[in-house]
Amino acid sequence: MLTIHARCTRGPRQPFEATTIERRTLGPRDVLIDIAYAGICHSDIDHAHSVRGNTMYPLVPGHEIAGVVAAVGAEVTKFAVGDHAGVGNMVDSCRECTNCRAGLEQYCSGRRVLTYNSIGRDGKPTHGGYSEKIVVEEHFAIRIPKSVPLARAAPLFCAGITLYSPLRHWGAGPGKRVAIIGLGGLGHVGVQLAKAMGAHATVFDLAPAKRADALRLGADDFRIATDAAAFSELVSSFDLIISTVPASVDLDAYLALLARDGTFVNLGVPDKPLSVAAMSLLRNRRSLAGTLSGGLPETQEMIDFCAEHGIGAEVEVIGADDIDRAYDRLLAGDVRYRFVIDIATMRS
Amino acid sequence: MLTIHARCTRGPRQPFEATTIERRTLGPRDVLIDIAYAGICHSDIDHAHSVRGNTMYPLVPGHEIAGVVAAVGAEVTKFAVGDHAGVGNMVDSCRECTNCRAGLEQYCSGRRVLTYNSIGRDGKPTHGGYSEKIVVEEHFAIRIPKSVPLARAAPLFCAGITLYSPLRHWGAGPGKRVAIIGLGGLGHVGVQLAKAMGAHATVFDLAPAKRADALRLGADDFRIATDAAAFSELVSSFDLIISTVPASVDLDAYLALLARDGTFVNLGVPDKPLSVAAMSLLRNRRSLAGTLSGGLPETQEMIDFCAEHGIGAEVEVIGADDIDRAYDRLLAGDVRYRFVIDIATMRS
Repeated sequence: MLTIHARCTRGPRQPFEATTIERRTLGPRDVLIDIAYAGICHSDIDHAHSVRGNTMYPLVPGHEIAGVVAAVGAEVTKFAVGDHAGVGNMVDSCRECTNCRAGLEQYCSGRRVLTYNSIGRDGKPTHGGYSEKIVVEEHFAIRIPKSVPLARAAPLFCAGITLYSPLRHWGAGPGKRVAIIGLGGLGHVGVQLAKAMGAHATVFDLAPAKRADALRLGADDFRIATDAAAFSELVSSFDLIISTVPASVDLDAYLALLARDGTFVNLGVPDKPLSVAAMSLLRNRRSLAGTLSGGLPETQEMIDFCAEHGIGAEVEVIGADDIDRAYDRLLAGDVRYRFVIDIATMRS
Repeated sequence: MLTIHARCTRGPRQPFEATTIERRTLGPRDVLIDIAYAGICHSDIDHAHSVRGNTMYPLVPGHEIAGVVAAVGAEVTKFAVGDHAGVGNMVDSCRECTNCRAGLEQYCSGRRVLTYNSIGRDGKPTHGGYSEKIVVEEHFAIRIPKSVPLARAAPLFCAGITLYSPLRHWGAGPGKRVAIIGLGGLGHVGVQLAKAMGAHATVFDLAPAKRADALRLGADDFRIATDAAAFSELVSSFDLIISTVPASVDLDAYLALLARDGTFVNLGVPDKPLSVAAMSLLRNRRSLAGTLSGGLPETQEMIDFCAEHGIGAEVEVIGADDIDRAYDRLLAGDVRYRFVIDIATMRS
């Protein structure tokens, strides 16, 4: 057993504080990762504040983890000490169901163990990446090519794969027109990915000030999400629209922008149910779909693709004492585009 | 110009009455069809009652038309006099847009002309199949193999194609599990089609009395739509669920029954928007989709498939004076499974 430094919150709206947690002794298929950076995902805040009422405290969030392999178990084949490695939002799954066997562990129909606020096979709560080290089975760790800086890599294990997977699944590529709603933590990676895949990419956002960034990141077009003229002009023009925003959007307005057989992928989980007119789907044989992050093979594919195309998250590096302030700023939309915690600031 | 007998309604909740309407003089690519039977679709009632407020009166409904070719224009190649022919819910489209060129005229992005309550190229309102004859361009008429009785064929041009198209599009076939919600005019054809395509077919209906019919029509399983145990037992088990009911159903309950990458196809247009929890779609990467009838090539494929597999609508033949009573019975769910008007009763 390893005792390590971490940052936890002890209740809804309680500030983060220094603590220690335990990581299990390395098993034969485990890797020990010295965490370098942990991204701050919007869902970390939801868990910290227990907005769904299911948070186990003390909570150590963090499922966008990048670091360096410090030790490997006897049977580990994928990693050597010194390799760069990442962990996303899962650390275990049943490995036996159809979905796990297809490498789509995110849809495990058995017992999926999330990186934090979940119960592991040992019966103990899992703790995330706001901590010095993590021990995971090598199956749930991803090799990070050394050309991707670790700070820019960390957010890819949630924000990156959550966009990469639907872009691939619904065939973003040459000749396809893709729209991404929200230029935030997810969207700013999504536009880079869509372009690198060869698709035409349009960004919708509420903030006119994001136009320059959208274009710099590769967008072919940028539209203000409240611009009625854009919605007239772009009727039936997209093959795929991905909404990255956690709030409700006017689904009927966006569905009208889908060409025949187009798909609107909703990634957010707003408080209220999604509402859509039946005719919005009947016309043009449109679909409304959802996806959850990605499986391990696809996550490896994603980071390799990012390395090949020079893609990374744009990050603001913060110290471990700045988590509360970062949460406030993230809730206010004041980040371009992802906070990552420099875990070195936790070792003191 | 041909003056023919028809039945019309002159306002919401006004009874049907005998009238005459005009059909255009045969153009070079037109066929004249002596209508033998016209099916009564639920949407006929919606139009007759102007539930969407867009009905032009006097209204001659009917878009499930089967009959015999009585004359052909000089350039017609697909039909000869004496052939059996059908017409569905469209009689014209732009022919130029991507969707028309793909043979998916139901998604025409230009000007689609519906069989009734629409304005044709001549600027006049279209009149449907509750009439002795119809003149349509051969492109919008379908060859009916003579092995399919005309009364059983008529409903296939709406009820049949509306199920055939999504079953084909979402890959119903061997190894696939399909559920159909509602054993009515659409559903009772859908279950026959799904079975003939080789899929496993389950029917959900509110009426226990329909079990025997569902099984006789080929269903492998029949479930009561209010049976909570069924919803527990069948979690994540279907690849495709098609709802044929015009009312709202509990989408979250049904979505939970879809396996990974499963699709729920909604064909009805309830009064209220569809409501769905975001998580119902995120889990298992599920989709909620809609479709509109089918294009001309697929409608031809559908009727040929029905002929090959001995599929037809189960019909109750009524006289032209019984339309009002049939509407009342259809609204009460008292029909197994489609009313068709014997158009011979109009000629007197």
